Amino acid sequence: MEDQNERPYVEVCFSPRQFPLYKDPHDIIVVIDVLRATSAICAAFEHGVEAIIPVSSIEEARDLQDQGYLAAAERNGEIVDGFEFGNSPFSYMTERTKGKTVALSTTNGTRAINIAKVSAKTVVIGALSNLDALTDWLIKQERNVLCLCSGWKDKFNLEDTICAGAIADALMSTGNFQSTEDSSIAAKYLYQSARDNYFGFLKSSSHRRRLKKLNLNEDIKFCLTPNQTQVIPILKGDRLTLLNQE
Amino acid sequence: MEDQNERPYVEVCFSPRQFPLYKDPHDIIVVIDVLRATSAICAAFEHGVEAIIPVSSIEEARDLQDQGYLAAAERNGEIVDGFEFGNSPFSYMTERTKGKTVALSTTNGTRAINIAKVSAKTVVIGALSNLDALTDWLIKQERNVLCLCSGWKDKFNLEDTICAGAIADALMSTGNFQSTEDSSIAAKYLYQSARDNYFGFLKSSSHRRRLKKLNLNEDIKFCLTPNQTQVIPILKGDRLTLLNQE
Repeated sequence: MEDQNERPYVEVCFSPRQFPLYKDPHDIIVVIDVLRATSAICAAFEHGVEAIIPVSSIEEARDLQDQGYLAAAERNGEIVDGFEFGNSPFSYMTERTKGKTVALSTTNGTRAINIAKVSAKTVVIGALSNLDALTDWLIKQERNVLCLCSGWKDKFNLEDTICAGAIADALMSTGNFQSTEDSSIAAKYLYQSARDNYFGFLKSSSHRRRLKKLNLNEDIKFCLTPNQTQVIPILKGDRLTLLNQE
Repeated sequence: MEDQNERPYVEVCFSPRQFPLYKDPHDIIVVIDVLRATSAICAAFEHGVEAIIPVSSIEEARDLQDQGYLAAAERNGEIVDGFEFGNSPFSYMTERTKGKTVALSTTNGTRAINIAKVSAKTVVIGALSNLDALTDWLIKQERNVLCLCSGWKDKFNLEDTICAGAIADALMSTGNFQSTEDSSIAAKYLYQSARDNYFGFLKSSSHRRRLKKLNLNEDIKFCLTPNQTQVIPILKGDRLTLLNQE
């Protein structure tokens, strides 16, 4: 019998602040920011964007804008002054971004991507919208996976955790992965409670309330609808591109 | 109609590492370390201990031991060399500790108590074993409550979160408290999934596995049995004493 401990792990980290406590170095990190950065990134690739350069600060986004890139910046759910786009998935469904490279800075998601890239061999983008495509690919890799939830300003958030729990659940159910962290077990339980009705389950989540106040109900609905796309954005150097799957 | 925002809050913080992100200053903090520090503290008061001095470091526990106090120290589930007791609840059910003051240092729980005391007006001890007594008292206070899970070395853990979720659930169900943090909502969901079978729910938790390896099954069973005592330990100065309820 194969040694159970030889199976690759799939773990869930609730926020960038908790990230240093998890095993290092990492093999594959899945960065998740369901409302809305990683959902927007998936939508952008689905609609033909060429590449996305995730930057942590607004200044970096402005620099790239000055260099001629399309640039997007969001803070606290709103588009930052001087930028055309924020992180609404619908911003990236137009001819305007097709075939282009976009610099993107968001409150939580792009920061998490840049934290992840320092210690992982591979960084990919996860959202509910690319869930099945992503998990199918991860299962084939047979490598250690850490799901890094972007959270909200270093705090735990429900929607990222549920997405991470869905990934952990799918990988674990193959029997070829193991989870040892309590955060991973909790994420799976939360996903199992939420899966039949993401919208209802998340109705009291803090970020959903925040976006609702900003009249972003259509965005929320889009971001909480699973499996709308097959794209898997992957980080190559400083930019996200489309993973070419075999 | 009463302003809903005037209701006191009940929130859950998953670990000491996340604590600085929560509203400050705090009114009442409930420190929770189900396996096993706060369960042991409740058992100690139930069995007549006079006071417990929670100290963060083993050196402080040794100093107090040198001053003639009974002293207990635990690290990674085991009694530290040179100490008579660790944090097994059964250590405090003997004549040896009755009427005495005990200095106590544990891996997670006593550290959380000392973090809490800096910013809260009132620090009380919560465990599954004093759950109903504690929630009844908290409901009467009508003050803001933060449940601080001790976690495991700054990480999230399941058993503390479930206990915190039980407290949040009880307070919220009166209609007189509000929760706004996603961590609090998640803790309640996890408690609702766990409440009919704590033992089964936690069978894969990391700390339960850790204690099982140390042959501490009886301790686990004790710590996961709710409502064994009416005691509410409360911090007064440098020591925990028994709250005199009206």
